[in-house]
Parts: sequence; structure tokens; C-alpha cells
Amino acid sequence: MRDIKVDLSMGGGGKRMDQLIDLIGKSIRIHNEEEDIVGPLQMDDGAVITLPDKTKNIVLTTDSHTVDPIFFQGGNIGDLVIAGTVNDLTMMGAIPKYLTIGMIIEEGFLLEDLVKICKTIGEKARLAEVRIIAGDTKVMPKGTISNIVINSTGLGIITRNPIQDSNAKVGDKIIITGEIGNHGASLIALREGMEFSTSLASDVKALWPELKDITINNSVHCMKDPTRGGLAAALTEIATKSNICIEIDELLLPFNPQAVPITDILGLDILEISCEGRAIIIVDSKHTFRILEQLQVIDKAACVIGTVIEEPKNKVIMKTEIGGTRILDKPYGEPIPRVC
Amino acid sequence: MRDIKVDLSMGGGGKRMDQLIDLIGKSIRIHNEEEDIVGPLQMDDGAVITLPDKTKNIVLTTDSHTVDPIFFQGGNIGDLVIAGTVNDLTMMGAIPKYLTIGMIIEEGFLLEDLVKICKTIGEKARLAEVRIIAGDTKVMPKGTISNIVINSTGLGIITRNPIQDSNAKVGDKIIITGEIGNHGASLIALREGMEFSTSLASDVKALWPELKDITINNSVHCMKDPTRGGLAAALTEIATKSNICIEIDELLLPFNPQAVPITDILGLDILEISCEGRAIIIVDSKHTFRILEQLQVIDKAACVIGTVIEEPKNKVIMKTEIGGTRILDKPYGEPIPRVC
Repeated sequence: MRDIKVDLSMGGGGKRMDQLIDLIGKSIRIHNEEEDIVGPLQMDDGAVITLPDKTKNIVLTTDSHTVDPIFFQGGNIGDLVIAGTVNDLTMMGAIPKYLTIGMIIEEGFLLEDLVKICKTIGEKARLAEVRIIAGDTKVMPKGTISNIVINSTGLGIITRNPIQDSNAKVGDKIIITGEIGNHGASLIALREGMEFSTSLASDVKALWPELKDITINNSVHCMKDPTRGGLAAALTEIATKSNICIEIDELLLPFNPQAVPITDILGLDILEISCEGRAIIIVDSKHTFRILEQLQVIDKAACVIGTVIEEPKNKVIMKTEIGGTRILDKPYGEPIPRVC
Repeated sequence: MRDIKVDLSMGGGGKRMDQLIDLIGKSIRIHNEEEDIVGPLQMDDGAVITLPDKTKNIVLTTDSHTVDPIFFQGGNIGDLVIAGTVNDLTMMGAIPKYLTIGMIIEEGFLLEDLVKICKTIGEKARLAEVRIIAGDTKVMPKGTISNIVINSTGLGIITRNPIQDSNAKVGDKIIITGEIGNHGASLIALREGMEFSTSLASDVKALWPELKDITINNSVHCMKDPTRGGLAAALTEIATKSNICIEIDELLLPFNPQAVPITDILGLDILEISCEGRAIIIVDSKHTFRILEQLQVIDKAACVIGTVIEEPKNKVIMKTEIGGTRILDKPYGEPIPRVC
């Protein structure tokens, strides 16, 4: 290992990140224990633990937000702080309750911008029905951190079986709650100076309480928000953990007409581009229509994109527009750094 | 507020940091609710919340670690990650249970160093009887973050009345569990190139389980670890929140003979220098001897340094070696940046 260095590809939600996380986990010697309903070794969106009195389970999840730029079309880092953590709790089937906020601020950062971000955090926390109950603030000398990085850790209460990535069943339908890749695409448009040629905005939003009725319904088998690594990474994770095949149809995928040209021009695959306000929901097929109807009230773009089939196991297959098939996979490295 | 910038003094555990935190809290509109035993407005070491079923209270606390250098005499950033969070839980009277770890790594960071840090995190977590149950990893481009920053958020279970900063009573004795300022002094020695002239090491350590017997004992009225801002800041915080006066005696303070000259030469006040493995314990005077005896088994330097008196309220008074008195206060700004 001597002289091997961490590179950007290890932060991108792809295979290289899995390798890095594996090394970190083994070095720490993380392990599951009997009290774990979903232990750290499951690498799900959060850990689910039985409290000593056995009456209540809690979910813990953590996220650090390093987005650049911190203000973007459709939101700012404060939106990500709330959405990232609330969505991870929601994806586990939990009721999001409390958040802690750890801010690391660069010397010279404008107080005015800090106030804007904090107001967003407060406002979006109230909308998501969570409360900030503890915090930490550090200031680092100029040039040792870029602008501001914010960690948010969330605690949720869980009263149903946790919704796990490993629970997709053959015959289930795969739903996406809205357009794919808008967060990442709008962010790179801004970074590459293309923001004036597009009105595309990030999709960042907390999915709680809008998914409340759906997550408490046990007909939901899996839920995952396609963040770093996009739809391709999230579906691959589910296929692998559930030991099934996911078959999706390219013609069914909902894209924003402004997002695709942005990723195309930069040689990126929109299926690997991050959303910050969408969920993949995998449901028992007999409930598909009812759930879809509920989702379309929130977002007209919600739709069924595919089905869980038996073979080939652990794979995601996409029927392409031109009638071929393509295997989707986790990206190897980092399509876009500092996207969340 | 236009054009006012965050400066380093706002990260130092002093009055300027209080102002910054106040602004952040008001912008977020943090507030207490009925379920809070110790709410966020108390600004204690952690928040204590009643879970919905009322049978169990939990404590949440968060800390980001930005220490520079990351390897130092007596430990590395991994020791701080565990000690910082475990100690905050311990200071509330909680049983530390679970930690989340959020790592933000600079591109180019040596994997070998990352593994060393993770091994320390794992080993120190096991010693402190806590388990890492969730994590997050981000990689930032070279030059946008210095080395590595790690957030740790902790959850503890609490079965006694929380130990609050506001609970010091007139007549109580003030105990310190070991030498003062070793962490900060050893770190600046290293930064200033004085490490070869000293064998001083950081005092960083998790105070759980070694304080277990003492924290579950209700004769403890207050507990606080003197981290950023040192003994002066921690005692001032207790005096203000408890609305009493703390009187300490300089002759009783335990210093490492190597620490004082280091801070003196740099014009720093050792009373404002951070410890990372010490606690101030304020106890009912009739239990002083018994508790001190227990503490001295762990560290011979543990001693009584003063008494809680009535007046002048909200002040910390020190009887000096030469027979005078001096009012201690929170430092205004940042004596040493990136100390934890």
C-alpha cells in the first residue's frame, strides 16, 4: 500500500469508492451485533438498531456535504444538508426526527452567505418535520478548506420493518419518482459556464413528508435515492444486494429535455448523474397502480421504468431505444466531483 | 452584515465563537420542545431527548475534527474523533453507545495514513465501548481541503438525570482529573518546531469507561471537558449557566512542567489551552474525598482546584500564586487554530 494515494475517483459513488469504503471498514473493523436490525456491514442508507428496551428501533445516518458551488440553480448547500440526511432516513422506512449539524467554515467566508445557508437549513428542516438539536462549528484558515463543508447526521424512529436494498422480489415493479439527473446536470452546467443557456434547476428536496404515506405501507419492498453514481449505481446496488436482475426500458425513463444535452456535450452518461430529490421505489406489482397514482399527484414525471426478473442475477439490464440491450453498472470512478 | 467575514477567532471556543454560534442558531431558528430534557438552546455538550415511548432518553452530540498536524505526540486525529464525541456524551451523564463517522479526504492523501487513522478509530472505539454504525466518505480535489477532516456524531443512552453545566451549587468542590493544557501545548510545540526539546504528549483519551462509576453517581453536579478555550472557557461557561461564582487557587492547578514554558514563550495563557482527555467535575463537597480517591487511581494528578461560592455571580476568580486575585474569562478569539 506504500505510496498509494486517495484519488478523486474514490469519492464518486462508484466501484472505486466501494473499494475505499471497504478498506476503511476493515481497518476500523466495523461489525454487526445482535441488536442490529440493519447493521453497518449491510452498507444501506443508514443503520437500524434496537434500543435496549426493545420497544423502539432507531435509524442513524450521516452525510458530509462538499458541494461546489455552494449556491446553485434550485438551491444551496443548506438544501442538500437537509435533503441528503432526511432522504436517507426516509429510504430506510423511518420517521425522520432529529439532525445534528457540523459546520466547517473557511476563514474569510461571508457572514451574509452563512446566514442565507442557515436560514435555508432551518426552513427546510421545518418543512421536513425534523429538528436541529445539536451542532458544532469549526473555522479553518484561508486556503485549507474551500468555502464551507457541512456534515449532517440524522436520527429517525422506525415502527415498520426497515426498507432494505436487499428486498427486491422477482415480479416487482420499479418506479422512479421524477426526472433523472437534474441535480448533477444543473451543477455542471453552472461550473462549465453553460448556466445561461439553460433554465435547468437542481431537483434537491427532502422526500419527507411527501413519501410518508408510501413508506409506511409495507407493499414497498425497496427504496433508494439515486445520489452519487446516479440511477446506474443505485439500481446496481439493489440488484446485487437482492440477488436478482433489474430490467429497465430506456424509452420509459423520464429525462428533462435540458439535462441530456448538457451531459452529452461533456461526454457524461446521464444515468450516472446524481439526483438529490428522487427515489427509486420497488413495489409488489399488484400495488403499482395505487402507489403510482399517489406519486403522480406530487410529480407528474413519476413512472414505472422496469421490472425485477430472475436472471442474469446481480445485473441491471436496459432495453435501449433502438431495440438493443445494455448492461448498466456502477461508474468506475467520479463522473463529477463535489456534486453533493 | 454586508461584507463581514468569518475569521479564525470565531472558531476558538471563546466569545467570538459564541457570537457566531448565536447567529447560526438564530438563522436556523433552533428551539427547544417539550420532549427535550436538555434542548439545543441550552448549548450543553449534547442534547438530551425523550423518545416517544418515554422509557428511555437519548443524547446526541456532534464534533468535526480539523486538527493540524494529524499525527502528533500522543495520538492522531483518530484518537480525537473517538475522545471528542465519547467525552461529550460522558459529560452529559450518558452511556456512550454508537458513533457515525463522516470522512472528508483530500485527493492525494496517503492510503497508508488513512489506514493508520482508521485502525486508531477502531481500536479506541472498542476501548471506549462504542460502536461505529454508519459512515460517509467524500474526497475533495487537491488544495480544497487540507489532508483530512473527520466528523463524529455520537448517540448515548441516559438513565440518570443529565449532568448539566447549569447545576453547580454553592459549597461544591471543583475537581480536575489531570494536568491542564497538555494537548494544545504539545500540538503548538510540534507546529513551532519545538518538539525536539520536549517529551510532552497530548492528553487525548476517551473518558469512558474510566469515569463510568463516577458519572452514574448522582453526587456529581456538573461535568465539562475543557477543550477549545481551555479551563478558563469551561469554568466561565459553568459559572454563567449556574449563576454562581467559581473560585480556584492557582497553587492547586496541576500543570506539566514542560507545558508552561511552551505556552509562555509563545505568549499564550495555559489556562486557555485545550485538553482532550480531562474533565472538570463539580461535586457535592461531602463526596469530594471518595470521588477524588477513585480519580487518583486513574491519574495521580487529579485534585481539587477550588470551590463554588455565591458572589460575584457568573464569574471565575483565581487566587494567584503571589496572593492576588485574577478574574478568568473566556478567551476573546482563537489562541491556537485547528487544535482539535
